[in-house]
Amino acid sequence: MSWKAIGIFDSGIGGLTVLKELVEVMPQEDTIYLGDTARVPYGAKSPETVIRYAVEIASFLVKRDIKLLVVACNTASALSLETLQNMLTIPVVGVIEPGARRAAAVTRSGRVGVIGTEATIKSSAYTRAIKRINPAIEVITRACPLFVPLAEEGWTGNEVARLTARSYLAGLKETGVDTLVLGCTHYPLLKEIIAECMGEGVTLVDSAEETARTVAEILLHQGLLRPAAEQGNHHYFVTDVPAGFIRVGNRFLGGNLEDVHQIKLEEAHVQEGSDVAA
Amino acid sequence: MSWKAIGIFDSGIGGLTVLKELVEVMPQEDTIYLGDTARVPYGAKSPETVIRYAVEIASFLVKRDIKLLVVACNTASALSLETLQNMLTIPVVGVIEPGARRAAAVTRSGRVGVIGTEATIKSSAYTRAIKRINPAIEVITRACPLFVPLAEEGWTGNEVARLTARSYLAGLKETGVDTLVLGCTHYPLLKEIIAECMGEGVTLVDSAEETARTVAEILLHQGLLRPAAEQGNHHYFVTDVPAGFIRVGNRFLGGNLEDVHQIKLEEAHVQEGSDVAA
Repeated sequence: MSWKAIGIFDSGIGGLTVLKELVEVMPQEDTIYLGDTARVPYGAKSPETVIRYAVEIASFLVKRDIKLLVVACNTASALSLETLQNMLTIPVVGVIEPGARRAAAVTRSGRVGVIGTEATIKSSAYTRAIKRINPAIEVITRACPLFVPLAEEGWTGNEVARLTARSYLAGLKETGVDTLVLGCTHYPLLKEIIAECMGEGVTLVDSAEETARTVAEILLHQGLLRPAAEQGNHHYFVTDVPAGFIRVGNRFLGGNLEDVHQIKLEEAHVQEGSDVAA
Repeated sequence: MSWKAIGIFDSGIGGLTVLKELVEVMPQEDTIYLGDTARVPYGAKSPETVIRYAVEIASFLVKRDIKLLVVACNTASALSLETLQNMLTIPVVGVIEPGARRAAAVTRSGRVGVIGTEATIKSSAYTRAIKRINPAIEVITRACPLFVPLAEEGWTGNEVARLTARSYLAGLKETGVDTLVLGCTHYPLLKEIIAECMGEGVTLVDSAEETARTVAEILLHQGLLRPAAEQGNHHYFVTDVPAGFIRVGNRFLGGNLEDVHQIKLEEAHVQEGSDVAA
């Protein structure tokens, strides 16, 4: 058993969908969430820069003595997971692997679509993860750069969102995929319009649920789960001022977001003798 | 006369439109451009964060011994100009003041519209600048958060862009403005669709030209212009890897973007005894 918290980070606010699932599956666990709101978004940035940001964030969270790290951002998972796993001695869980597992389990036609940010799609991380599970599955990918700004503008059901979705997804639909991975934590907000474009025969896969299950399994197997009777506490850190995060976050979590603190990441350095591998 | 370069910065690539005008007006001047591509965009970030970034960038450029600093980003101009002017002993020129001057000169009806990022519009910087010139002018503003991602996606003439522009601008048009300030360096890329939405009677004001004229005047008055026969050199710094900047930048400048270097801003500190005011 470990009383330590679960660390979780995203480029901004989207990772709260993963946090929500974590809390649903393991209400007894403490969590520490970090949203890099001063540098959001990551989706159009280079692997080098995203990895540097992920390492800074992981170093900050590890100093707070977490027992497991969740990379709740598809772009950061796609680009930095291996670096973080090599750097840290605690388990590091991304959202790509769980999403890929779910997609491979769900598809019947053997044709899976994946949508995400430019950086995620360019990395081919989903394609590799799905093919590791089942090399026979055909994976068709498409970057949808405007979905994040649309979701943040709250334009999730209007004609602009519908036309944009059609423009991005028409080609994908024609390929005959029966499963579509929403490879970005913002995309579930556009679920209805995406489902409408893809038609009834296509199952949408949201990584959040599957990621929470994966985390619960790891903690269980390693004997790190807190007693089920406990009630976890939740702390939040952001790199820009908290106001916007609190406002939108309350919409995401459907509750009162409290205890949100602003930090400067560039000042965070990895503590010696901590959980960081030599 | 001063042989020093003109420093110029933007959150990313948009400021190149201002650089282009500077070079057109003063081909003899050296320039040093910095695009903060690792942290772009600024438009939805807080004043505190944008000011911090602007100060880091100004400190970096001042260390390179510039004779004047152009803040070629509307958001940074709106939020950080005063801080930078107080901090530095060299002239600091933003894009708001020149845009406001042009709008005030152009309007006949006395009703001016301003569009920009959320941060720029929230700051009311344009409204204040226009009213300082002519308090009788009525200023109507509107944030257009999706214009930047649309321009970056290259969707500047399709149906999504048209619908988005209509949705943002319909209310503005109804107010009867005869002048519209494009208060973001990305917006000139959407000029055609914006003009189409606003109708023939509305003049669009792009700050780049007016800003270049302002810079030329200051250098002339302070005796800092280089001899007209010279040919300036142009250096570029970015905070993310240069590839994307070079690709899109060539489209902006219509030429061969060379000499682009990546830097880490967090390491830049203000040099003592430099051009920084005590």
